[in-house]
Amino acid sequence: MLEELKKLVYEANMELPLRKLVTYTWGNVSGFDKTTGYLVIKPSGIDYEMLTPDDMVVIDLDGNQIEGKYRPSSDTPTHIEIYKAYKDIGIGGIVHTHSQWATQWAQAGRSIPNYGTTQADYFYGDIPCARSLTAEEIEGEYEKNTGLVIIETLGSHNPLHVPGILCTNHGPFTWGKDAAEAVHNSVVLEEVAKMAFFTEQMNPNVKRTPEVLLDKHFLRKHGEGAYYGQDK
Amino acid sequence: MLEELKKLVYEANMELPLRKLVTYTWGNVSGFDKTTGYLVIKPSGIDYEMLTPDDMVVIDLDGNQIEGKYRPSSDTPTHIEIYKAYKDIGIGGIVHTHSQWATQWAQAGRSIPNYGTTQADYFYGDIPCARSLTAEEIEGEYEKNTGLVIIETLGSHNPLHVPGILCTNHGPFTWGKDAAEAVHNSVVLEEVAKMAFFTEQMNPNVKRTPEVLLDKHFLRKHGEGAYYGQDK
Amino acid sequence: MLEELKKLVYEANMELPLRKLVTYTWGNVSGFDKTTGYLVIKPSGIDYEMLTPDDMVVIDLDGNQIEGKYRPSSDTPTHIEIYKAYKDIGIGGIVHTHSQWATQWAQAGRSIPNYGTTQADYFYGDIPCARSLTAEEIEGEYEKNTGLVIIETLGSHNPLHVPGILCTNHGPFTWGKDAAEAVHNSVVLEEVAKMAFFTEQMNPNVKRTPEVLLDKHFLRKHGEGAYYGQDK
Amino acid sequence: MLEELKKLVYEANMELPLRKLVTYTWGNVSGFDKTTGYLVIKPSGIDYEMLTPDDMVVIDLDGNQIEGKYRPSSDTPTHIEIYKAYKDIGIGGIVHTHSQWATQWAQAGRSIPNYGTTQADYFYGDIPCARSLTAEEIEGEYEKNTGLVIIETLGSHNPLHVPGILCTNHGPFTWGKDAAEAVHNSVVLEEVAKMAFFTEQMNPNVKRTPEVLLDKHFLRKHGEGAYYGQDK
Repeated sequence: MLEELKKLVYEANMELPLRKLVTYTWGNVSGFDKTTGYLVIKPSGIDYEMLTPDDMVVIDLDGNQIEGKYRPSSDTPTHIEIYKAYKDIGIGGIVHTHSQWATQWAQAGRSIPNYGTTQADYFYGDIPCARSLTAEEIEGEYEKNTGLVIIETLGSHNPLHVPGILCTNHGPFTWGKDAAEAVHNSVVLEEVAKMAFFTEQMNPNVKRTPEVLLDKHFLRKHGEGAYYGQDK
Repeated sequence: MLEELKKLVYEANMELPLRKLVTYTWGNVSGFDKTTGYLVIKPSGIDYEMLTPDDMVVIDLDGNQIEGKYRPSSDTPTHIEIYKAYKDIGIGGIVHTHSQWATQWAQAGRSIPNYGTTQADYFYGDIPCARSLTAEEIEGEYEKNTGLVIIETLGSHNPLHVPGILCTNHGPFTWGKDAAEAVHNSVVLEEVAKMAFFTEQMNPNVKRTPEVLLDKHFLRKHGEGAYYGQDK
Repeated sequence: MLEELKKLVYEANMELPLRKLVTYTWGNVSGFDKTTGYLVIKPSGIDYEMLTPDDMVVIDLDGNQIEGKYRPSSDTPTHIEIYKAYKDIGIGGIVHTHSQWATQWAQAGRSIPNYGTTQADYFYGDIPCARSLTAEEIEGEYEKNTGLVIIETLGSHNPLHVPGILCTNHGPFTWGKDAAEAVHNSVVLEEVAKMAFFTEQMNPNVKRTPEVLLDKHFLRKHGEGAYYGQDK
Repeated sequence: MLEELKKLVYEANMELPLRKLVTYTWGNVSGFDKTTGYLVIKPSGIDYEMLTPDDMVVIDLDGNQIEGKYRPSSDTPTHIEIYKAYKDIGIGGIVHTHSQWATQWAQAGRSIPNYGTTQADYFYGDIPCARSLTAEEIEGEYEKNTGLVIIETLGSHNPLHVPGILCTNHGPFTWGKDAAEAVHNSVVLEEVAKMAFFTEQMNPNVKRTPEVLLDKHFLRKHGEGAYYGQDK
């Protein structure tokens, strides 16, 4: 079942090593199917070069395995919580990686300040870093609690205006309308994470992108009067 | 029309991902045709792997679309202002990217100091960073005003002696006698932007290239008595 | 003899330039055969592009050359000491490289602090940097003493919980159940070495991964109740 | 004439872009023929992708062009001075590049401290940075004076023990027994230049490689009792 979605999720997963966002098996992509309410996700610890669309695992939002010969990614409970929380907003894909630059900000426990239009074209402000999980949260349902702290951090923000987040001491999660857009946002996150670091090194007193420029760039791509790109 | 120029501008655009100066669609190249007074530019938001010479858009210096099935790059008004200002100097190509190192200096709001002969071979001094646009300039004709602040920053300098500039919180623009040379200068800018950063890290008290060495290198390539390379 | 092991050790050696862990001949991999008590190792100073499985050298744990037309890696005595010390623990492969990031920490004389789950998935804590060898140790049996100081540094730690180490002013050694796993751990070491550096730059007051998170990640992959990956 | 040497010098030149040591035409390699006393060098400003062995230029040590349809590299007088000064020591190849990391140290005006065995395997100590040329030296025979300041800096050192140097505000020169070894040393210089920088960042109080370890590594490869590699 969901053969089309499995293919898209497979392709989105394969984009990760191609874009140099993962080493070995350090990442996973899932996609969500609105009709069935099932998600399709990479199996745990399988090499990318071995992966086929058929290896994708189908899971329902209660965590029951519907289909697939492999165990799903160990991060599946994180994906489930995010899909459940933002069902109405239309999140259709989620990515987790240990990509170098985003992971460094996560290890440093810092949000990525918005220093320019490259970030403003995709993120309507900073890229937040979630608080550390408590010992109870880690020793309990760790992967589920990772999802919950992401939702807690986003708070009242529209997750499509902040399509990515950092988990302290761990790494980034990104999302989007579908699995491909979620991977696209992982690539963007990695680029802006790198540029924000060197920007601070070049000018320790650097200021964030002015609000008016942030508005201009985010809204010319995502607002109602968007004029970047071609008509769809 | 302008089929030859479209092909050159197409090839110059394709050089950007090849030289790793752009991620996704984050850049554009244009070329100017003196005879017609038209410019040829990349369409907005089209993937490089899809691009063909036929997709290039032809625009006049008043911003009217003369030919092309797509909407032109959203940065077209910036290109127009630069061509208009330097018609007599022979600028035939302009490039905009979000290349990593140049963009970081732009985000840091700093000009790139001339620290060595690599930069002096192409830039007769520092690579300036334009002032921030005002709220009015951003909320008004933003892309046009970006062109105007570039011209304001160059002031009385010969733009072929300073073939590139940084726009605060945004990224670099470069130019040249034609589209290919403009891309060449984007590659150079990226290299020297990277080297200037690490030079400062290695020696926080580093001094600029002495005037006499700057003269030697810039003029042995660009002056009347140039002796670098072969006779043309 | 040991044709199968020679092939595995050859392939593990070839992985080093592929993963960009060595320049020229700056690295070597060995594998250990429990039955014979012999080790198979790369010959000294032979280019990777020339290497064949037949070039591998067979050595016993007293350092006698059993087979092979070439002289073994000059680091062979280091490998021998490690195999001898951990015979019962099942170390079956050892790697030495001058990979950039690990070597920098070794040159800086610093252990790599555990700043996140990427490291915690493989290293149950910091990656130790051995003390400098004394003048006597260097002027005497230098390569053997390098092995001895590695063992001294590991002390009572299980070497499979700390599958790599840095030698001051020199570079890293890693190990594993076999040659392939030892190379895998060299790749991981390089990645976490790079990320730990930038993490400190981003937040000079950064704290180590909390113990509870370290436990969670190391044990979900390596403990008795491991649930990462597929059943073997 | 010197067809064999032209081929070797051509191949050594082509190694530079392959090893990512040059952008565009920012580098040149020459080789010296003892019998004729001529040197063979890359032509000035010719793209690497266009280069053929036949394009190499033959020059005598007075700077007279003996053969070749192109003008030689503008740095030829620098090469000539080095060959003249070290005729008896057997320098058979010289390389100049603007490779990123070596150039940064040159721009910073700093010698590269010897922080580990990677450097000690090739350089018997630091990699010196020559003093700035005076205004007179720059305005006069600039390229020749660049050679003279290199010789002045080496002083009584054996240039084969220090097979490379940095020219302030400019970039590196390396040399070796032949053109291939000179390129090899450029690759090594770039690697150790990069590692020395990050070593200092990781530990601002880092100390140089102890003398005894420097001796051990340099001499096990280059001394009379060398035991690295295979017998020749």
